[in-house]
Amino acid sequence: MNKNANILIVGLGLLGGSYAKALTKKGYKVHAIDKNEDSIEYAKNEKIIVSGTTKEDKDLIKTADLVVFALYPHVFLEWVQRNKNNFKDGAILTDVTGVKESVVYKIQDLLPDNVEFISAHPMAGRELSGVRNADPKIFKNANYIVVPTNKNTKNAIKTCEKLGKELGFEKISTLSPKDHDEMIAFLSQLTHCIAVALMCSNDSENLSKYTGDSFRDLTRIAKINDEMWSELFLLNKTQLLSQMDAFKETFDKLYDTIKNDDRTQMREMMKLSTTRRATFDKKEN
Amino acid sequence: MNKNANILIVGLGLLGGSYAKALTKKGYKVHAIDKNEDSIEYAKNEKIIVSGTTKEDKDLIKTADLVVFALYPHVFLEWVQRNKNNFKDGAILTDVTGVKESVVYKIQDLLPDNVEFISAHPMAGRELSGVRNADPKIFKNANYIVVPTNKNTKNAIKTCEKLGKELGFEKISTLSPKDHDEMIAFLSQLTHCIAVALMCSNDSENLSKYTGDSFRDLTRIAKINDEMWSELFLLNKTQLLSQMDAFKETFDKLYDTIKNDDRTQMREMMKLSTTRRATFDKKEN
Repeated sequence: MNKNANILIVGLGLLGGSYAKALTKKGYKVHAIDKNEDSIEYAKNEKIIVSGTTKEDKDLIKTADLVVFALYPHVFLEWVQRNKNNFKDGAILTDVTGVKESVVYKIQDLLPDNVEFISAHPMAGRELSGVRNADPKIFKNANYIVVPTNKNTKNAIKTCEKLGKELGFEKISTLSPKDHDEMIAFLSQLTHCIAVALMCSNDSENLSKYTGDSFRDLTRIAKINDEMWSELFLLNKTQLLSQMDAFKETFDKLYDTIKNDDRTQMREMMKLSTTRRATFDKKEN
Repeated sequence: MNKNANILIVGLGLLGGSYAKALTKKGYKVHAIDKNEDSIEYAKNEKIIVSGTTKEDKDLIKTADLVVFALYPHVFLEWVQRNKNNFKDGAILTDVTGVKESVVYKIQDLLPDNVEFISAHPMAGRELSGVRNADPKIFKNANYIVVPTNKNTKNAIKTCEKLGKELGFEKISTLSPKDHDEMIAFLSQLTHCIAVALMCSNDSENLSKYTGDSFRDLTRIAKINDEMWSELFLLNKTQLLSQMDAFKETFDKLYDTIKNDDRTQMREMMKLSTTRRATFDKKEN
């Protein structure tokens, strides 16, 4: 991956657009395909990309040394199915998909031998969407996770890590698809489930004038893109249900300490949560 | 409540100390009683109070026109039991206690007719504790809730509201003890239960390097003062268990949509949570 490389971004939304901005600024030649004409025109006018189209243009696909997919999972799978024979010999493909086991192996199985797919999860985002809100600053202080399988070469893994660095991610790490999905089920999907359930459990509009910071912090992610998250939840169903089960069990345990006036056990749980949360703060600094 | 009023603060921790700082700055004569010698000395040296003692000094108590209790609930009840006949004729007493039904009526029943207790809940705090961390800035943008019963006079309610304004609270509102406890069970206690259960449900230390903002936001309150919160939970047991039941039911409903691949119903819940959370944002601005 050198500065003469042609990078093609498929899906020019918030993430794809932020990739385009960051990589163009670094001097790469960035191209884009997006079904939305306005997104392509905007990106061209803003000089975020050197070329772009709303078509699945074979000639453009063929020029790309690196292709980044920033699409919903099912759209990503269908796109690769249609275009699997249109890539340049030796092209490296990567993605931004939020779940891995149910996607990565299917993509690798679809592709011919002359191209390599190395999966990655840039753990960045914001409440806004679309290329007009794209901003490489969202990568700062965020995690970029490379998710290789045993089909991946060292070269492709290295290229993917370099991409994460060029984008400006602070931390680059590596996880297997299974470990990634377990981590994401606990740290991200479960927390979104909790926030959604909390907002749905009480018609709290009359309470909103009393809300403090803790409730606002806890429910910020309750504003959720239901099309995307419902797909991601179902694609990681086993891991997510397992994390939800563990949470329900612990919540029930805390419930019982209150019901049974078992203050000792209640305080033990609070002490454990305090200790565990403190280790996070150290890493915040 | 004029500037010549003597204000006595009982319990000079983070909240009591912040009251003392704010009221001294406004020109009131502030006194304090705290069992901790160091807290009293510090407050005197910093000129946050004009006088203070570690004893339950009858003469000092007798001079106070307004007494603010910033103690743990059971300590507060015991203190008033011991000193109920030591207050000045016509003195107004108030508090900062986080639960109301189980405290307010008991205190009012304890007191003789020549003094009046008007309860309040300043919804402010921070992770730190102690008078050395006191800072009236925590009252800015925060809610101050006056919690009268039918025993309270208009004059005392007015004095309590004025106290909230003098402290620098942006919003002053009024709730009955029951409504207060229901609100606090949902907005504050339930969220703390969720954060504690979440931290206890998974030994997440190995995951902490992957955590993003949403998990950090959701678990910030999992660092919890177990002595204080376990007391507050048990003193609001009925309301809290009822809110926990409602949350569990909704969480189970969301769980079932994932288990049954019921994407339509899942998206309905996500849309509801998004709409409800959006009303909070409007009030954030």
